[in-house]
Amino acid sequence: MELTHVCNRGVERKRVDWVPASVQWTNDFEAILRSDANVVVELIGGLDPAGLWVRRALEAGKSVVTGNKKLIAQDGIELEQLARKHKAHLLYGAAVAGGVPVIPGLRHGLVGDQITRIEGILNGTCNYILSRMEDGAQAAEALQDAQARGYAEANPSEDVDGFDARAKLVILARIALRADLRPEEIACRSITGIAAIDFEYARELNCTIRQISRVELRDGKLFATVGPMLVPRTSPLAWSRGTENMVLVGGKYGGDVVFSGHGAGGHPTAVAVVSDLISLAHGGSSIGLPSTPTQVGGEFLLRHSIRLVVHDCPGIIAEIAGALAEHQINIHAIFQRPGYQQEHLPFVVTVEPCTNSALRHALAHFAGKAWLAEPSLDLPILEP
Amino acid sequence: MELTHVCNRGVERKRVDWVPASVQWTNDFEAILRSDANVVVELIGGLDPAGLWVRRALEAGKSVVTGNKKLIAQDGIELEQLARKHKAHLLYGAAVAGGVPVIPGLRHGLVGDQITRIEGILNGTCNYILSRMEDGAQAAEALQDAQARGYAEANPSEDVDGFDARAKLVILARIALRADLRPEEIACRSITGIAAIDFEYARELNCTIRQISRVELRDGKLFATVGPMLVPRTSPLAWSRGTENMVLVGGKYGGDVVFSGHGAGGHPTAVAVVSDLISLAHGGSSIGLPSTPTQVGGEFLLRHSIRLVVHDCPGIIAEIAGALAEHQINIHAIFQRPGYQQEHLPFVVTVEPCTNSALRHALAHFAGKAWLAEPSLDLPILEP
Repeated sequence: MELTHVCNRGVERKRVDWVPASVQWTNDFEAILRSDANVVVELIGGLDPAGLWVRRALEAGKSVVTGNKKLIAQDGIELEQLARKHKAHLLYGAAVAGGVPVIPGLRHGLVGDQITRIEGILNGTCNYILSRMEDGAQAAEALQDAQARGYAEANPSEDVDGFDARAKLVILARIALRADLRPEEIACRSITGIAAIDFEYARELNCTIRQISRVELRDGKLFATVGPMLVPRTSPLAWSRGTENMVLVGGKYGGDVVFSGHGAGGHPTAVAVVSDLISLAHGGSSIGLPSTPTQVGGEFLLRHSIRLVVHDCPGIIAEIAGALAEHQINIHAIFQRPGYQQEHLPFVVTVEPCTNSALRHALAHFAGKAWLAEPSLDLPILEP
Repeated sequence: MELTHVCNRGVERKRVDWVPASVQWTNDFEAILRSDANVVVELIGGLDPAGLWVRRALEAGKSVVTGNKKLIAQDGIELEQLARKHKAHLLYGAAVAGGVPVIPGLRHGLVGDQITRIEGILNGTCNYILSRMEDGAQAAEALQDAQARGYAEANPSEDVDGFDARAKLVILARIALRADLRPEEIACRSITGIAAIDFEYARELNCTIRQISRVELRDGKLFATVGPMLVPRTSPLAWSRGTENMVLVGGKYGGDVVFSGHGAGGHPTAVAVVSDLISLAHGGSSIGLPSTPTQVGGEFLLRHSIRLVVHDCPGIIAEIAGALAEHQINIHAIFQRPGYQQEHLPFVVTVEPCTNSALRHALAHFAGKAWLAEPSLDLPILEP
């Protein structure tokens, strides 16, 4: 794959020095249409001129990779037909949930199921605002904070009123449920109006509040809404924090499948765009395979917890601490639950990051001690 | 796509009456090799004769779809090369995490990232045992329960000692990290030895215990292990329950992406197999699109919570209950937090499942009432 052109209105403002000198920078989309480029990546957003450019590219037999949710939600079916007619491809993995591979997952991994339901957190801005409020922020403060961090526009309507999420829901419903929806058919409710007190009551109901985009096929009829909902803390959707995106796909045979990750931002969007480009280049076939064996180790540097059951007697902690220190392992904390007998007393020592082999050597020091009532059990602690 | 043959040793035992009469039932794999079938689906498992049959099918130019994690972990690279040589395809989405599209997600959606880390709950049996123990079961009881439900074999070593998860980790590391690992190179630790007391201490550390399969690329070196770990409750991996599978993929650009769902069982495995078959049939290109517009509704039947802020006076609850009853909406509960003033008193009414329009009509009854200090806020409650 080779980058040939960068096109933008007033492209000189965008010029960077880290792309190859062979790349042509141009204001003129016609130059790209005339070129021998096979693929056009459209990342200007909005309907105009993006829609025109995508159509012209497809008509010229060039495949298109885009992250334009608005265009794909509104005209995606027509554009897919145009692509087929001209033997080109149209891929838009970046249009929904950015770096979270929901669209490839639906297209390739769940296409064998009958999907009946999608519930998603599709707008990172709303999720940021609502999870800030869950942590105690007032509504206005959470919005200002989202604006200050660049997550929300000066006019946040597209996000908070649900239009952005709605476009993404239309695209997911099309792929997963084969449903042809118009965005304006889906009822949207704003998250404006949610107050701090609503989170207090949500807590009493063992819930939190999230902007949820839902579509469900029931008795042959489709239901779809976007808006704030109370979400039980037992639902994976309640676990989403900050700008995270999450999509729950319910299938007749496979049950519920959850995808989550970073939905927006330059890097996750780039992952989706580059993945689509690689898929195009490989014609959908498999990726490259390793040709040389890889060396493998098992020596993560990790915190550990060590559970010991002892016949209690003086000096045990000193012996343990000495054995650990001999292998440069630092004790982090010692826990002992009440209510056990002296002759069969469990307690736990946690240690700072060390290798498994150092820990093995340290534990070997007291493996045969008379005060040990049971073999010790050590567990690595996964970093949060 | 048309099913042409079913092959099994002693196939007569397997015969069912719901497949087309044209399907040939045979004990003889040679009959399939001689046929004009394009694809062989291998679901017998194990290395022998599955490995021989997969090789013979690929050598005959037939593509193979398989769920055989043991075979793919051990000989996958050789088999992929064989497939390429004979212009056939080899797909094995069912080999890891069954109905959770981790392999398609990695191949198509995350191929544009540089994956540096995978952490997964890849064995549903271990997860069932450990989440039963988290809920208070003793180790022996949890294992017996898993065996009674058919989740664990009479000899559970393959699951509890980590060999099953290790084969899956080898496959994921190959696809995501382009790492050529041998299963026997990965250190495995059994979950045997985890006792109820370990969950008590895990709780004190704000953790739970799960069998975690990890592979990480750090400074050009690969680290890989399978075994029980303490998992902080803040980690998505702590939220997996029962036989659920979960895979966290860490990328340099896209950050952490999480996939979860039902890893095993006939139906989720079938979803993965059928999805691979459809991918083969479409040559990896896009799925069918809807051709007729779909009718859409927004009327889910849902529980709702209604937050009201009132100037407290007698008869308010009666008025609200009356308005709701008029629209056949049943009150589920009324909550009122202490510490608010009579003239600006918030409280919440939850109602049993009703449509949004019925609720709108009911709320309109008291929208203009003098006792209402603020407009009411109603939220649907997502079903757990």
